[in-house]
Amino acid sequence: MKTSPFAPERLAELPPLAGVRLAAAEAGIRYKNRKDVLLAILPEGTEAAGVLTTSRTRSAPVDWCAKCLKGGKARALVVNSGNANAFTGMRGREAVEATVAMAAEAAGCGPEEVYVASTGVIGEPLDASKFSGVLTRLAGEAAEDAFQDAARAIMTTDTFPKLASRTAEIGGVTVTLNGIAKGSGMIAPDMATMLGFLFTDAPVAAPALQALVSRHVATTFNAITVDGDTSTSDTLLLFATGTAQDRGAPRMVDGEDPRLADFSRALHELMLELALAIIKDGEGISKLIAVEVEGAENDMAAKRIALSIANSPLVKTAIAGSDANWGRVVMAVGKAGEAADRDSLSIWFGDILVAKAGMRAPDYSEEAASAHVRGREILIRADVGTGGSGRARVWGCDLTNEYIAINADYRS
Amino acid sequence: MKTSPFAPERLAELPPLAGVRLAAAEAGIRYKNRKDVLLAILPEGTEAAGVLTTSRTRSAPVDWCAKCLKGGKARALVVNSGNANAFTGMRGREAVEATVAMAAEAAGCGPEEVYVASTGVIGEPLDASKFSGVLTRLAGEAAEDAFQDAARAIMTTDTFPKLASRTAEIGGVTVTLNGIAKGSGMIAPDMATMLGFLFTDAPVAAPALQALVSRHVATTFNAITVDGDTSTSDTLLLFATGTAQDRGAPRMVDGEDPRLADFSRALHELMLELALAIIKDGEGISKLIAVEVEGAENDMAAKRIALSIANSPLVKTAIAGSDANWGRVVMAVGKAGEAADRDSLSIWFGDILVAKAGMRAPDYSEEAASAHVRGREILIRADVGTGGSGRARVWGCDLTNEYIAINADYRS
Repeated sequence: MKTSPFAPERLAELPPLAGVRLAAAEAGIRYKNRKDVLLAILPEGTEAAGVLTTSRTRSAPVDWCAKCLKGGKARALVVNSGNANAFTGMRGREAVEATVAMAAEAAGCGPEEVYVASTGVIGEPLDASKFSGVLTRLAGEAAEDAFQDAARAIMTTDTFPKLASRTAEIGGVTVTLNGIAKGSGMIAPDMATMLGFLFTDAPVAAPALQALVSRHVATTFNAITVDGDTSTSDTLLLFATGTAQDRGAPRMVDGEDPRLADFSRALHELMLELALAIIKDGEGISKLIAVEVEGAENDMAAKRIALSIANSPLVKTAIAGSDANWGRVVMAVGKAGEAADRDSLSIWFGDILVAKAGMRAPDYSEEAASAHVRGREILIRADVGTGGSGRARVWGCDLTNEYIAINADYRS
Repeated sequence: MKTSPFAPERLAELPPLAGVRLAAAEAGIRYKNRKDVLLAILPEGTEAAGVLTTSRTRSAPVDWCAKCLKGGKARALVVNSGNANAFTGMRGREAVEATVAMAAEAAGCGPEEVYVASTGVIGEPLDASKFSGVLTRLAGEAAEDAFQDAARAIMTTDTFPKLASRTAEIGGVTVTLNGIAKGSGMIAPDMATMLGFLFTDAPVAAPALQALVSRHVATTFNAITVDGDTSTSDTLLLFATGTAQDRGAPRMVDGEDPRLADFSRALHELMLELALAIIKDGEGISKLIAVEVEGAENDMAAKRIALSIANSPLVKTAIAGSDANWGRVVMAVGKAGEAADRDSLSIWFGDILVAKAGMRAPDYSEEAASAHVRGREILIRADVGTGGSGRARVWGCDLTNEYIAINADYRS
């Protein structure tokens, strides 16, 4: 597999978070000679929030996380790659329960404080006995500086590990937010990231955490699309250990508390950086496509139109071929099912106005438009002309032979 | 461009229809050494019905046809390939009006009796002056046996012309239905075919024709998808000359008239054959995919789920790679946004039950499933387990490198 041209030259080094200990190992789920299971141990008092896939065929681990999130407490997280434990029926539930029991024993906590996530092939039973012994060993080895190892262990078709970090102030005290994520196919924003795990030492109660993560997911993980295919396993979890309270940070219980403003800003940045890292590693990507829509009836309409553009195979293949085929953008606006005024529609490629008031721009330059789409980061902007103030921004990638090569032969 | 593996060995020879005269010529719109404009002359008294794209950015010719269909009368049809005359603003409307004026003069009829359709690149002004003289010449040359020439002239990326014919009885008199169509990308069922033109000598009034074509479009042209991209130019027109009245066929004015039952059956067959011809020539197709969904809440829900499967890039690439990756079918059912019961969901590949009651079928055979998907015609069947009686059938094709090759470089 070719490494994404957007792979960072150097992986981010995440600062340690007191009491957040991580370790990864080879459990031999599917891949050979690759770490494929991650255990994170969280300190007592950790609160949790999250967003899960909206799929009607969601996986057994997602079912489990939904239950745990009601309690809002967390002490451990187990993630495996290579098998999604999705569409595995009763055996899938049993595999989750067995994994949770092992992790709970290793972490010394109750099962309802153990979160699980699985990513990989759908429909094959997950043999949880492969974790036997492994989780206990990992609990012993787990260390605060193992974020890179953790990010690697959750990869499937990803070509680079995804890590990001931010700091924020709460009541004058600096807190840290770390995150890891993985993509990189079956990515569609409903909700999006296959897996994302965020950790902070900020003392924020679960309901407040949930309010923040729910607010920011729309413009970050839910604003990216690789192929419009929504996974059965999408899981975004945010764990707040609260250890910054030892350093004087006040405990926050209300998501609307103005003292959370800076934390909210940092959380949004962190989520956006990880979401963009996923799209930059979209299967077969050669070009990153940002789509901005304005002039729609409302923000939701704008987002639907933006996604119609970003998911269109004809737009995506044109960009892959460096063809400034803006007529296909017209088509994608038209098919989105949202109000748009054809005769007021304007389209830009980068800064270049290519279409205006329902037709090709008077001073349209094919050369200028082509120069933009020959680049690696493409911006498609459309004012859909309803006069409304709805706007949205989403990110996608082009559709290349590499995507087909990866996906025509994923299982074998 | 590689010819579709589904191309027929021999083109259908359509029988003549009294007074329906066709001719095609090279107008040099875009292609070189290829006929790219079709004129059909229809006898006095011809009635018309049709279905047009639902796109919000529909083309100037579609705007025009919508207006003509209100009158329900037809005497001529002009179709060009190479330029869609879409998103061309005032100049697009002027090009339509100029084309219509020339055709009306050539056919000796009013402008409101001239239908136009254009297919090809979006956003480039169509130079109607290229038709000057051509249409008059074509009106002179037009002949009743020129259906093959007509079907060829409307092609764009099609690799074979699409023609079909049926007969039916109305009041004991045999009537004929002929049709031509073209695809083969930007095909999504809303409505679907890029262009389809049907002709019959049956004496059926426009409102009754409209009732029939509207009824059948859902299960034919609107049940196919190549790439989920809905064109700005989709146009399906049905012209009934009524000349069979001379042979004693009764004139039908009510679409519900039981004497229209056989005609309705034949029309459905004709529409389905042409729709399937379009999908069999879907850009880059190597395998035809039929998707059947049952057990949904209602027929519309079933169709949405079926289209979610047929449009999924991950399902389409798996089939391209002959990978019986039914887990992706589970994913596509789950993301469709319609009710589905994961734990009652069953999936078949051909006759092979691969998943049952929310997990892999107990006697699942990878070998048997693989043997089916190695074939050229793939059947994916899903019972989504809601207990409802909703069912639907749609057709799609696989997603191959050839699709990307065609579309990454279509304009240049």
